[in-house]
Amino acid sequence: MAKQDVYFFDEGDGSDRLLLGGKGAGLCEMTRLGLPVPPGFVITTEACRRYYAGGGKLPAGLMARVRKNIAKLEKSTGKGWGSPDDPLLVSVRSGAAVSMPGMMDTILNLGMDDRAAEGLAEKSGDARFAWDSYRRFVQLFGKVVFGVGDSEFDGILEEAKRKQRAALDGDLGEGALREVVARYKGACERKAGRPFPDDPDEQLELAVMAVFGSWMGERAVVYREKNGITRDVADGTAVNVVAMAFGNMGRGSATGVVFTRNPGDGSNRIFGDYLANAQGEDVVAGTRTPKPVALMKREMPDAYAKLERVCRRLEKHYREPQDIEFTVERGRFYLLQTRSAKMNAAAMVKTSVDMVRERLVTRERALRRIRPELLEQLLHETIDPKAAARLEPAARGIAASPGAASGVAVFDVGRAVRMGEDGGSVILVREETKPEDVPAFFASAGILTSRGGKTSHAAVVARGMGKPCIVGAAELSISRKEGRFAAAGGAVVREGDVITIDGSSGRVYAGKVPTAKPRMTRDFGTILEWARGAKRIGVRANADTPEAAALARRYGAEGIGLCRTERMFGAEGRQELFVSMIMARDEGERRAALEKLGRLQKGDFVKILGRMRGLPVTIRLLDPPLHEFLPNPSDPPPPGAKGGARRLHQLRLERARELAEVNPMMGHRGVRLGVTYPEIYEMQIGAVFEAAAELARRGVGDAVPQIMIPQVASIEELEYVRGIYERVRDRMREKHRMRFGISFGTMIEVVRAAVTAGRLAGAAEFFSFGTNDLTQATFSFSREDAEGTFLPEYLDKELLRSSPFQSIDADGVGALVRSGIAAGRAAKAGLEVGVCGEHGGDPRSIRFFHDAGVSYVSASPHRIPIAIVAAAQAAISRKGA
Amino acid sequence: MAKQDVYFFDEGDGSDRLLLGGKGAGLCEMTRLGLPVPPGFVITTEACRRYYAGGGKLPAGLMARVRKNIAKLEKSTGKGWGSPDDPLLVSVRSGAAVSMPGMMDTILNLGMDDRAAEGLAEKSGDARFAWDSYRRFVQLFGKVVFGVGDSEFDGILEEAKRKQRAALDGDLGEGALREVVARYKGACERKAGRPFPDDPDEQLELAVMAVFGSWMGERAVVYREKNGITRDVADGTAVNVVAMAFGNMGRGSATGVVFTRNPGDGSNRIFGDYLANAQGEDVVAGTRTPKPVALMKREMPDAYAKLERVCRRLEKHYREPQDIEFTVERGRFYLLQTRSAKMNAAAMVKTSVDMVRERLVTRERALRRIRPELLEQLLHETIDPKAAARLEPAARGIAASPGAASGVAVFDVGRAVRMGEDGGSVILVREETKPEDVPAFFASAGILTSRGGKTSHAAVVARGMGKPCIVGAAELSISRKEGRFAAAGGAVVREGDVITIDGSSGRVYAGKVPTAKPRMTRDFGTILEWARGAKRIGVRANADTPEAAALARRYGAEGIGLCRTERMFGAEGRQELFVSMIMARDEGERRAALEKLGRLQKGDFVKILGRMRGLPVTIRLLDPPLHEFLPNPSDPPPPGAKGGARRLHQLRLERARELAEVNPMMGHRGVRLGVTYPEIYEMQIGAVFEAAAELARRGVGDAVPQIMIPQVASIEELEYVRGIYERVRDRMREKHRMRFGISFGTMIEVVRAAVTAGRLAGAAEFFSFGTNDLTQATFSFSREDAEGTFLPEYLDKELLRSSPFQSIDADGVGALVRSGIAAGRAAKAGLEVGVCGEHGGDPRSIRFFHDAGVSYVSASPHRIPIAIVAAAQAAISRKGA
Repeated sequence: MAKQDVYFFDEGDGSDRLLLGGKGAGLCEMTRLGLPVPPGFVITTEACRRYYAGGGKLPAGLMARVRKNIAKLEKSTGKGWGSPDDPLLVSVRSGAAVSMPGMMDTILNLGMDDRAAEGLAEKSGDARFAWDSYRRFVQLFGKVVFGVGDSEFDGILEEAKRKQRAALDGDLGEGALREVVARYKGACERKAGRPFPDDPDEQLELAVMAVFGSWMGERAVVYREKNGITRDVADGTAVNVVAMAFGNMGRGSATGVVFTRNPGDGSNRIFGDYLANAQGEDVVAGTRTPKPVALMKREMPDAYAKLERVCRRLEKHYREPQDIEFTVERGRFYLLQTRSAKMNAAAMVKTSVDMVRERLVTRERALRRIRPELLEQLLHETIDPKAAARLEPAARGIAASPGAASGVAVFDVGRAVRMGEDGGSVILVREETKPEDVPAFFASAGILTSRGGKTSHAAVVARGMGKPCIVGAAELSISRKEGRFAAAGGAVVREGDVITIDGSSGRVYAGKVPTAKPRMTRDFGTILEWARGAKRIGVRANADTPEAAALARRYGAEGIGLCRTERMFGAEGRQELFVSMIMARDEGERRAALEKLGRLQKGDFVKILGRMRGLPVTIRLLDPPLHEFLPNPSDPPPPGAKGGARRLHQLRLERARELAEVNPMMGHRGVRLGVTYPEIYEMQIGAVFEAAAELARRGVGDAVPQIMIPQVASIEELEYVRGIYERVRDRMREKHRMRFGISFGTMIEVVRAAVTAGRLAGAAEFFSFGTNDLTQATFSFSREDAEGTFLPEYLDKELLRSSPFQSIDADGVGALVRSGIAAGRAAKAGLEVGVCGEHGGDPRSIRFFHDAGVSYVSASPHRIPIAIVAAAQAAISRKGA
Repeated sequence: MAKQDVYFFDEGDGSDRLLLGGKGAGLCEMTRLGLPVPPGFVITTEACRRYYAGGGKLPAGLMARVRKNIAKLEKSTGKGWGSPDDPLLVSVRSGAAVSMPGMMDTILNLGMDDRAAEGLAEKSGDARFAWDSYRRFVQLFGKVVFGVGDSEFDGILEEAKRKQRAALDGDLGEGALREVVARYKGACERKAGRPFPDDPDEQLELAVMAVFGSWMGERAVVYREKNGITRDVADGTAVNVVAMAFGNMGRGSATGVVFTRNPGDGSNRIFGDYLANAQGEDVVAGTRTPKPVALMKREMPDAYAKLERVCRRLEKHYREPQDIEFTVERGRFYLLQTRSAKMNAAAMVKTSVDMVRERLVTRERALRRIRPELLEQLLHETIDPKAAARLEPAARGIAASPGAASGVAVFDVGRAVRMGEDGGSVILVREETKPEDVPAFFASAGILTSRGGKTSHAAVVARGMGKPCIVGAAELSISRKEGRFAAAGGAVVREGDVITIDGSSGRVYAGKVPTAKPRMTRDFGTILEWARGAKRIGVRANADTPEAAALARRYGAEGIGLCRTERMFGAEGRQELFVSMIMARDEGERRAALEKLGRLQKGDFVKILGRMRGLPVTIRLLDPPLHEFLPNPSDPPPPGAKGGARRLHQLRLERARELAEVNPMMGHRGVRLGVTYPEIYEMQIGAVFEAAAELARRGVGDAVPQIMIPQVASIEELEYVRGIYERVRDRMREKHRMRFGISFGTMIEVVRAAVTAGRLAGAAEFFSFGTNDLTQATFSFSREDAEGTFLPEYLDKELLRSSPFQSIDADGVGALVRSGIAAGRAAKAGLEVGVCGEHGGDPRSIRFFHDAGVSYVSASPHRIPIAIVAAAQAAISRKGA
């Protein structure tokens, strides 16, 4: 046997959570630190594994080794195991490596029988306490070992209280409790078909087996599945056997749960509750209302002073705020558990900064402890959580773009634009949106759709604009004609009614719900500053408008990694122009429309490049298929359209049908449009050059535009478009008599581009991995179809650990990314390589990209701080590795 | 200078076609063989490249070197360059490495001027001949060097004939010809603005420059683009300068073009035409009707005997039937050109077999010279080419499944089934087809659709059944309601009218067109037998029905590499059952429908496995998304449906809308269905086992079924389905008390499968690359969308050399195939790896797959012979390499 399977607390290695479980490791560690922990021992997770390997039998000799440790307990407490005079009672608690609150079992006061109860009554001088402890033991044991339901015990207790006219459990006297104990034991014997065990060894063996057994109980198994607790982080549970400390031993006794710092705001004060004269179960059960721990300072000053001291000591030792359980037994202070405190984003940020100032942790450690994805809480208007708790949402959808917004529900694009311009707060409600609806996005405070997933048009546009958005609220039935929607629950909202959407949770509320403004605190700023200093890769933003660019820059973006030019065609007035370009009957008509578009697009580029001066702005040429800009063939004609307008609509519908595709995701889009309609790309490239020239004329010489080609699959395509770029460049050099620093690069979002990256590098100054499309193509999963059909079942059946659209699939997509980078850099040393898929804002993916050696990631503006912190963590952990 | 830029015919290396051009290499080679070639020399393609590199100037010293060779010519002919007594005349002909018939220029009789004409008249004693030769020279020179139009010369000649009342050119006398020459020269001088050159050196220099210049002329450039002639196979043209041999020198003179064997049937007899007293241009121009060369035996027996001798000699030397030009000058026989003869499939096959018998070539060489793709001509009913030449097709579409068929046009599935069962010959005409239309496929002689590409449903099903099919005939406007279609050209076909379709050319004809039955000759069988012996990889068939399986076996397939199980649900009666499975409201209903389907499917497997006994049959589980089996939401309800039937249709439409997908190609299909509806795969796997058990009971112990899972992206999916397979297997072992040799494998058609192939090999006994889908995913090209939109433009603009759906893309898709095979075999040595995409029937792709090390390719039954020959060629050429 390589390792023992039972450790007395002073023997265990407090860092070995896998072996001892989290609780056991903490108890061993605290014992070693000399903190006041009741004596006890841990039966390891290894014993649990062997229990299962042996088909549900305890490992040979285990109980003999347990008995030896009981003997040590007797020695250190001076009490006797099974002694009728001064009985040694223990608690038996499970404790896996990963906390599974409420899932596993606890038995208190084990070692009790009738004679021990008498002895305890005598010794403590409190017979009521002794029989109440006995009652608790029988109930917990009966439940855990024999599976007797709580309701049975509750019935017996209620009956006793009725008989005694007692209001509270605590009002029952010794005699009544003796009767309750007897009836409890009767219930156990009926259920188990055997006498209630009085022998403490037998009690302990049954209890240990029950705890082991509970590890594979349905409740625990489901919990682990739902929480992604796999065998590598927790395999089996340990059992902690601890000498009882009694918080219920009358005056001077208490029990409590506290955080060493406030988990709500991070302030450096003990935060928590305690109950006088109670055992831990009373706090959990909620039968009595605990008091704030601050009161303890007055009521139990000595114990409070001890509590404060151990809190400081534990923080200093663990260098992390702790969440602890304690018990005071007649003035004597005991620690029963310690673990890292869970806290919200604000508290996480503040404690990180504070602990660095207190020299408790280094900056690196302070950064590593932050959970980046929580930071988003700090950047958006949020639903007031107290208000939300009282409200039932009218509907739920997919949280597509975070933040909360209230406004008048509007179903029509034109009306939304008018109302928005009049200063009203509008929530645009649609079944789905298309580029032609984009003017309404500008005018709305938030967007709600009943169809589509996280990459639907509405979701992507709203995120690019930083507006709250819920998509795929399938339970809404929207009737645009009647100007109303009905939720599955029965709520009906008419156009003009106020609604509130929470794009962070996907909840839709009828009426106005109070919201809280975001606070970009100074501490948050400090964390970001540290993170910027620690990270090694760049963080840029996906931003399509001057406003989004400004926001991104404020959040610390070091450039724009993805500026989608087609968004600009969505703004009011331009859309008509763009559609007329699509409807053009020949190249001449198309060029005329393009010339006008080019002038407008130049203006956009001037604004965005101006906002980002000094930083690179990667401009992606037109990507979506043209039919996306036309009306949907299955849509009704626009209300009120007559005569010419109606005919025009008809023509467009025809063209839309003509252009419709079986698989638009792999259709006529991106560089394929650039090849078949080179005049479109020529216009866009020209507009970038013209914008740079205009800025130079205005004295802004430090604009850094980059031109990026989407959907490239081959060097032939890239060279074709590069030919256009070079011709435009030469023309512009001549025209403006200046040199331009405008680089030319390619997206790597088609599998073939990743496979032939070495050749592409010959015609590209930079790469940018579009991991959204690359993931779709690598899996052959159409994201829009997968999310509503098989993907949830894949997650349920654990065929996928997480959605590959959320976190990068390292084995498949990631392998293509790695080999693409290697081939690109082999062909062109130092090649700039970015990532502009949504993975660029996902911490786990950022870690992967850091390790893969990308130059930068690009994320939605509101995920910039997350990305910065995640990039810092990746750099720190690699350094550590 | 490493190489000369001018070679006298006895100096040149006849194998260096790249340097000397095809014509020049042939002339050098024949000279070396001692065959009667007029003396001459070659100016190399290298000189042409230097001409272009120098900006259109002849390389320094070239003309001096040419002049030296002219001096050699003078010596060997005894004539004088520019001599007024016995002038040396030459032809100047272009000749690139690859033949470009009609694209490049020729000048005859160069070296002529007025004095030379007189001398020639005197020397030959035939003034008419001399002035006619002069006239020809001026016309060709004027056209090639000065760009004078033929019409101008024709006008002058016609006028002269009118004046002389001459019917034929040959009726013009010397005097008239003198005047014609003068007027021709006048036309040249007007066009060129300079005197007509009389100096033979100047004539030659101008001619050489004109020939070099024609290489980049628009006509030649377009020809090379269209025919895929790239710089690596032909870069620049050579110029051949040859002493004239005059076939037009009166009696005993002639010129002719012959094949050493008949290129129409391969019979071993000289085949071709000749013209007495003519120059080569007369044969080409078609102004006189040539005579069959057989007549020459009687009319010019000596010359014919020489011709026969050189034919034998050339065949023996080149070991390939030749296409030669000859001239007889007053009884003296000259060879002017030789090249490999182009021939049709039947001739290719017969000559290959004959030449082996004659010990002219080895079997390997005989196999290598076959162009496999032509073999398809021999397997199908074909449109009688003579009949077709007289007919204008009513419409053209995409040739989707080869063969010709005539029948009554029918637009309705039900009617097609009834008429087919009544023994009528039916052509099913639809806009597009879906699985629910498959019963009509069984009943029809051919299928014609107006939409879809080569992988559309109609195309794939028809190929699987071996029925002629045309798809995407976009110019047809089909009205199913009115039972008629109109072609763009105006033809209208009503239901019941007879039409003929040619699935090999994509042509649709109104009425019945005569067709020719295929002939599987003994020689063809011999070739296949040799090929089977030479090839190293297996050739299996894609076949879904017992009939197709039988056909495949007859053609030499060594198993079925792809048996698509969903096709079986299309047959009459089953379709309803399958739809009711889809429409099932719960798993119970679904299982009930599946049980019935399972029994039917078992029956199919019994039949197919029985036909293929002893050979492997790879059965692919359900692949297409379920909505493909439901009616199309945009279709009208079935005519005449009322009440219940109508409601049922409505329900199905609703379900179809519910299941509709944005990108069905990457949607809820293949193994994703197997994961979400495991009961479907369980049924199919069970049916395979039951079929094997049934066959074993009947004493057929050598059935070799393999179960193959489509669309697999991850080991997790594969293991999930393998779990089902193993449970079914264990159950079947128990039930039937037998062991089964049914292996389990995966398709590799998703990119991620190729990337993680090493892991997949852990749960798979075999791989099969589905290169159709893999190509789509690697390029992000949806084939159905690409073929009608950007793909033609990609080919036009040479961004692609050929469609990647036709020939495997070696750099991208091929790289994934290679690395997938390597990883799979590294994990499992000797892993069986097949290919079942349509590339499995494409010779260029087969070569790639052979080199990549696959175990077998699988092709449509009608492509099996092609695949066998291509596989043999790959093996032979690798051996040679």
